Amino acid sequence: MKKLINEVESVVPDALRGVAAAHPGLRVDVDNQIVFRASGPRPGKVGLVSGGGSGHEPLHAGFVGYGMLDAACAGEIFTSPVPDQMIEATAAVDGGAGVLHIVKNYTGDVLNFQMAAELSGEEGVRVESVLVDDDVAVRDSLYTAGRRGTGATLFVEKIAGAMAETGAPLTEVARVAREVNARSRSFGVALSPCTTPAAGMPTFDLADTEIELGIGIHGEPGRTRSAMRPARELVHLAMDAIHEDLPISGDTLVMVNGMGGTPLIELYIAYAAVVDHLAEKGARAARNLVGGYVTSLDMQGFSITVCQLNEELTRLWDAPVETPALRWGR
Amino acid sequence: MKKLINEVESVVPDALRGVAAAHPGLRVDVDNQIVFRASGPRPGKVGLVSGGGSGHEPLHAGFVGYGMLDAACAGEIFTSPVPDQMIEATAAVDGGAGVLHIVKNYTGDVLNFQMAAELSGEEGVRVESVLVDDDVAVRDSLYTAGRRGTGATLFVEKIAGAMAETGAPLTEVARVAREVNARSRSFGVALSPCTTPAAGMPTFDLADTEIELGIGIHGEPGRTRSAMRPARELVHLAMDAIHEDLPISGDTLVMVNGMGGTPLIELYIAYAAVVDHLAEKGARAARNLVGGYVTSLDMQGFSITVCQLNEELTRLWDAPVETPALRWGR
Repeated sequence: MKKLINEVESVVPDALRGVAAAHPGLRVDVDNQIVFRASGPRPGKVGLVSGGGSGHEPLHAGFVGYGMLDAACAGEIFTSPVPDQMIEATAAVDGGAGVLHIVKNYTGDVLNFQMAAELSGEEGVRVESVLVDDDVAVRDSLYTAGRRGTGATLFVEKIAGAMAETGAPLTEVARVAREVNARSRSFGVALSPCTTPAAGMPTFDLADTEIELGIGIHGEPGRTRSAMRPARELVHLAMDAIHEDLPISGDTLVMVNGMGGTPLIELYIAYAAVVDHLAEKGARAARNLVGGYVTSLDMQGFSITVCQLNEELTRLWDAPVETPALRWGR
Repeated sequence: MKKLINEVESVVPDALRGVAAAHPGLRVDVDNQIVFRASGPRPGKVGLVSGGGSGHEPLHAGFVGYGMLDAACAGEIFTSPVPDQMIEATAAVDGGAGVLHIVKNYTGDVLNFQMAAELSGEEGVRVESVLVDDDVAVRDSLYTAGRRGTGATLFVEKIAGAMAETGAPLTEVARVAREVNARSRSFGVALSPCTTPAAGMPTFDLADTEIELGIGIHGEPGRTRSAMRPARELVHLAMDAIHEDLPISGDTLVMVNGMGGTPLIELYIAYAAVVDHLAEKGARAARNLVGGYVTSLDMQGFSITVCQLNEELTRLWDAPVETPALRWGR
């Protein structure tokens, strides 16, 4: 294993020190592994808290800032943060209008956020939770009951974050967050496994000509193995799986996401195939993201996330955002 | 080789179709492999043209837009574009104030841009050229006479682009471009080789515990091989090599750049070490970029580029920019 790290034990705090140094708009509590907006809570604005295992960067810390999250809790690699982090983050970002927890559907994350929501409630903070479960590949996988949460997390954070900036009440912010999740589906393909620093070896084996269809963001198994195929065929497999679960039509928001080790030139090749596929379905990518946004360490591969837009979601997607990893219009 | 491509022969046009579909602010001539601003040339503004081999995305097409390039010419993977592309781009972006060519110092690129500049001149377009040669690792390498051009290319494009937007004359835009190059130095480290689609196998071999210090962006040899070391030691080696060539002090602009296959979490770990190193030298990173900006396909590794800032360069760096890969302040 060759990784650009100091010690296996210090990967997350070392990276958080880098995040703190790189982004003056953030305040980073390295000891407790929480990343906040430096500006603090805005009175009357609903606070947004998310978090999860590290190894998916820029998710979540890269989405803290104006128009998205107020705080992100970082767990160890591929491990949920603990309730204490979430409780501290929740208290810190409450501007009196309550706090929304955005939770990816993995058992550890769900249990810990649930406990944090209850205890925060007892301390007088109104908390609503939204569960993200957009991955159509498998049900009840290694770490999950039900569907896994992957790329749509970013869509939920962006759109709910924009709604919160308008001063909307907690119920409204939670409603739109749930609507984004309900309208979003994802499917991922791995060309290679990833290697966690602690394990020091690949999370699974793939032969030289073999790929894993429906991969999770921790290298957990997908639907099936397959021989390697041209990009357009892989994209069609992924889009068909998405379409089968939620028929696509009209205007969509599409992300072609790199899993961490895939070059950008290849993601653009995949995106061209996505656009062709949408045209066949009578749909179009009205908005898009192409790049590494929800990664799995050094895994090679990609995922596609599609969200069926409406006028409200489009307007909120277009609203100004200023975070390390997404920035426009301000 | 597992790559997210359709056919080896169509990698560049397939990716350019994706770029065209993803970014409505760009106009892409897929046949001639040129990416323009959709808005066309602005009368009286100096036009900026760059280009080079593909495989370094987002360089160069990802930096076309307001405040940076007017056009980028894409060659085949790791191969210079041809003079015809450059001549067409130059004519198309000339708004009457002349055109600046930004050329990375590789023999093919230099010869082709030279020919394009001469022929464009004969057609009545005033052209100035700036050569980028920031890589301190080696002199007279595989593809280069003198030093190679790497990460500073982005700094030159951003700062010269900002100067051009002010309506400054060609001589001024060229002057500031040369100043950025003169004040910038880079050093790269490879943890793994890259694989070009056409070759189908790694460009070189590295043992499981071995790294290449001073790597070029095409996998060309660096200074030396070494055993794998902790990130902070690799960063110190790179920073010492830079400092030896151009002593660092005061305010700097620093990029910690991923080579394509390196996860963002590792780049932040490296950035934290850079900041520590700068503090030891009595310097600081007044501005920074952390991410994959000048890549080498799927290579794992990183490069550091440092530019010694002054008031003018800081102001131009901070000026608004709106391109696929850099976007702020507008």
